[in-house]
Amino acid sequence: MYATIVNKEVSIIRNIAGDFPRHPLQVNALMEADAEIIRQHGNIDEYLVLKTDGIYEEIKEKLYQDPYLIGWMTVTAPMSDIAAVGAQPTGVLLSLVLPSDHNPAWLKQLKSGINDACKAYNTYILGGDTNFDNNFSAGATIVATIKGHKPLLRKGVKAGEYLYASAFLGLGNAYAYSLLFDAAFQIKYQPSARLDESKIIRNYASACIDTSDGLFPALSILSEMNETGFNLTIPLQSILHPLILPVQHHSVLPAWMFMAGPHGEYELLFTIPKESHKKFKVACENENWQPVLLGESISEISLYFSSESLDVQCHPATIANLYYEAGNYRSYLELLRHQHKSWTNQNLEL
Amino acid sequence: MYATIVNKEVSIIRNIAGDFPRHPLQVNALMEADAEIIRQHGNIDEYLVLKTDGIYEEIKEKLYQDPYLIGWMTVTAPMSDIAAVGAQPTGVLLSLVLPSDHNPAWLKQLKSGINDACKAYNTYILGGDTNFDNNFSAGATIVATIKGHKPLLRKGVKAGEYLYASAFLGLGNAYAYSLLFDAAFQIKYQPSARLDESKIIRNYASACIDTSDGLFPALSILSEMNETGFNLTIPLQSILHPLILPVQHHSVLPAWMFMAGPHGEYELLFTIPKESHKKFKVACENENWQPVLLGESISEISLYFSSESLDVQCHPATIANLYYEAGNYRSYLELLRHQHKSWTNQNLEL
Repeated sequence: MYATIVNKEVSIIRNIAGDFPRHPLQVNALMEADAEIIRQHGNIDEYLVLKTDGIYEEIKEKLYQDPYLIGWMTVTAPMSDIAAVGAQPTGVLLSLVLPSDHNPAWLKQLKSGINDACKAYNTYILGGDTNFDNNFSAGATIVATIKGHKPLLRKGVKAGEYLYASAFLGLGNAYAYSLLFDAAFQIKYQPSARLDESKIIRNYASACIDTSDGLFPALSILSEMNETGFNLTIPLQSILHPLILPVQHHSVLPAWMFMAGPHGEYELLFTIPKESHKKFKVACENENWQPVLLGESISEISLYFSSESLDVQCHPATIANLYYEAGNYRSYLELLRHQHKSWTNQNLEL
Repeated sequence: MYATIVNKEVSIIRNIAGDFPRHPLQVNALMEADAEIIRQHGNIDEYLVLKTDGIYEEIKEKLYQDPYLIGWMTVTAPMSDIAAVGAQPTGVLLSLVLPSDHNPAWLKQLKSGINDACKAYNTYILGGDTNFDNNFSAGATIVATIKGHKPLLRKGVKAGEYLYASAFLGLGNAYAYSLLFDAAFQIKYQPSARLDESKIIRNYASACIDTSDGLFPALSILSEMNETGFNLTIPLQSILHPLILPVQHHSVLPAWMFMAGPHGEYELLFTIPKESHKKFKVACENENWQPVLLGESISEISLYFSSESLDVQCHPATIANLYYEAGNYRSYLELLRHQHKSWTNQNLEL
């Protein structure tokens, strides 16, 4: 029934990078992991890990304007991918395009955000590249290592595994919504890369991805990489981050829209095989960490979820692709509302 | 006499990155090497090497318009820094901002340039990050290693050492000049990172830097890092790249202006202590490579050179700083001409 649907992000990346030859020691094929993983010659369980990421669009669309937050996110966005593969950072290279007319106080705040993030992740700025232009942007490359265990990939999910998130979800989209569409609420947004949780996850999970683009885009990628679907058995309104509740109440948006992306919450989304579940839960309790059980992986390439009174079955790429079809945030919100209406009508017809 | 002159690039970088704490295993202090060098714990002569660079300005100023050249230079620019520290590349991460309306043929050419550069340097694209925007830009991070020898730094020059360039100079500036100011000539420009030559240089040199910004900016950095000056004993007109001669003849520009930057030729500039000179020359002969002897390092923080009938003594940062004072290429050419006139008048007064 879904034969022609593909994840649009995956097709764009395959078009740009799909025909570059791969390094013979690279563990992950294209898109198969949140970061690039290269086996260190001669060492079976030692890997060099790299990730380049920029917060280009967030700055351009004015989602991030506070220089401290921009600095913090410049390091946190790629660091979240380092966490998702189970690595520990060595250091960070910055790639900055600074406004020619920036003032010293602004630069100080930007550097303060970068510095605080490095401290939080116990890492260092190693160097970088700076240009000057009115099109301000900020990116970073993180170099990291894995020693003594296998890397976590996006690939590895089998049907019948538990699907978990590292915490409650939706804060990234709620932040974007309140900033762009509802001045009545301000959401405090400063996510942390889940490096500590990753140390537990890497011992038990069959696959992992971060929710930097939101829950549904992450599920779509996992589905595409593993040829599986997911049945979210927990009602989505019960796993909304508590800070979202006033915004949701005011906006009357269904819970699922806060998980649609494209602006995510940088949690980790991972699958635990049933045979490892007990040990995983014990490890979490020992560390006083309560991950959120979302549901399970299924062999059918479909997504099942419920949000308030709505029950949905759709292709895993359906929601993720709406943002690519929309082109801008306002049209995107319209497409989300349209999608919701169409599902509500389907529900009524049942 | 030069007490107040400092290299402007160095002050800008110190202002942006000077107060980030350094990684305890990082070998180079800020600006002390062309790439970032991190000692691998427990291995005395094993280092991880990283470099992020973008060809931001070259695209913005339309110096590079051919997508193949842009792809080639995206890899070559940071690879030249990898060569300058004596490292060998593991792989490349791309950071692309592609025009939203790019056509498939254009993208194919860009990728072809990237691919050919990777093949030339025996390396691979490991991954990257792509955004879409009309402000097209391209950058890359290269990860590399040094094993079994010390890294080459910019720091290490002592007075009384031979100063060499890996080949004839000036092609980068001649390319920029002909493109921007003299449509009568087209200069073929596609420099290669000097990874092979670097394997010889790293055994004998006390310091090394690439001429990505041109000869004089590189000399200014070496001078700033080492508190030395340089006496260029070879007349500059005799080390101009042969392809420049028709442009020079037509433009009536003195040879030194082709070495003023900001658009360099990606050669290596390095110093050889006198006691290693004989062995270095034998090694070069064995590899059929003829580096260009420029002169020597001196304890006085001054630059001496001759270009055609002109004899100059100036602060090592004087020429390098003109580009930062100018703000654009046309004013820069005026400042260079003004500087030349002022030196010519000084010469006449002697």
